[in-house]
Amino acid sequence: MKMAYSPASPFARKIRIAAIELGLLDKIELISPIKAIPVTENEDYAHKVSPLRKIPALILADGNVIVDSYVIAEYLDELAGGGKLIPASGPAKWQVKTDHSIIQGMLDALLLCRYEKMLRPKEFLWAEWADDQFKRAWDGLARFEAHPDVLTRPLDIVQIGIVCVLGYLDFRFPDCGWRKTFPKLNAFHEKMMQRASVNTTLPPPA
Amino acid sequence: MKMAYSPASPFARKIRIAAIELGLLDKIELISPIKAIPVTENEDYAHKVSPLRKIPALILADGNVIVDSYVIAEYLDELAGGGKLIPASGPAKWQVKTDHSIIQGMLDALLLCRYEKMLRPKEFLWAEWADDQFKRAWDGLARFEAHPDVLTRPLDIVQIGIVCVLGYLDFRFPDCGWRKTFPKLNAFHEKMMQRASVNTTLPPPA
Repeated sequence: MKMAYSPASPFARKIRIAAIELGLLDKIELISPIKAIPVTENEDYAHKVSPLRKIPALILADGNVIVDSYVIAEYLDELAGGGKLIPASGPAKWQVKTDHSIIQGMLDALLLCRYEKMLRPKEFLWAEWADDQFKRAWDGLARFEAHPDVLTRPLDIVQIGIVCVLGYLDFRFPDCGWRKTFPKLNAFHEKMMQRASVNTTLPPPA
Repeated sequence: MKMAYSPASPFARKIRIAAIELGLLDKIELISPIKAIPVTENEDYAHKVSPLRKIPALILADGNVIVDSYVIAEYLDELAGGGKLIPASGPAKWQVKTDHSIIQGMLDALLLCRYEKMLRPKEFLWAEWADDQFKRAWDGLARFEAHPDVLTRPLDIVQIGIVCVLGYLDFRFPDCGWRKTFPKLNAFHEKMMQRASVNTTLPPPA
């Protein structure tokens, strides 16, 4: 199978880390770099892969496409036997799925903030919007800082997702000071950075 | 269990339709209206329910919260026995999950377009952004128009999602002309409107 991705995408990084941890990376041919930037046409991708023009997208051998990264993570987990990074049943399953969807929303919010500040013409910048989006991600980090049990259980998709949020902050918001505000997340991030899956998928220099 | 919702939210409507079709509506107390508008503070909701400040959110009897609507739909389906609105296994499961996530992205894009045009101060409006977001939803409709098998199979979460996209277009973009451009979706929508679940959950007059 093939995966459309970009080295800068935190959503794609989440899947790359998951694929390495699940032992599936050698089954996935990475197609890079895919340009997935708002207000940029990409008719071919919109038609053949996803009308949302977002990455990552998994293209199976039979041509079927799986999006978005939330669904791809579940697909790869099942391919690896199930219950590896996402609990197979019970309340833990719904907690992990909820946390995973919150992380998706945090990343969405950070990207909206980034687009507001860097992509949008300066004269149309609405600072309150950018601040509001950033605050959603920040409040999400506070939520995980306050529940450190999430950080110490066996590796799961939530921990991988948190690493991708933190890596994206270092990449695009290097002065935000998350390490000082969230010391438990900082210790967690340092521990996670010892994994090859996390270390080798860092975003490129900004 | 309780569900935080707003009558105007297409994401919440999707869950309300699903709950009715699954026979679960009487188990859900709707908490309304929840204000979930960007650049509007809602510290209590952010802290107790979701840092993303989005609706819907399902609050279980034990106090645990399930978000977002993608996950709530899966939770309710499992509660109703599983495999009702989302196939339990096989390629059909991944196709429905993919289509469901595309519908989520289409609704996200329509809300971003709406916020750009109605919430953002006029002087900061970036028309290309609004058009680009709208186009994602439009291209998504074209995708479903081109695969009418999606519209004729037994009721599933994708069909419910499409109805919510179309209902939101009528509600917020009444002049977009989707009925003319997508005749198969129009026939599908008319058929779906005969269901009480669809008819009784229409958004309020704009």
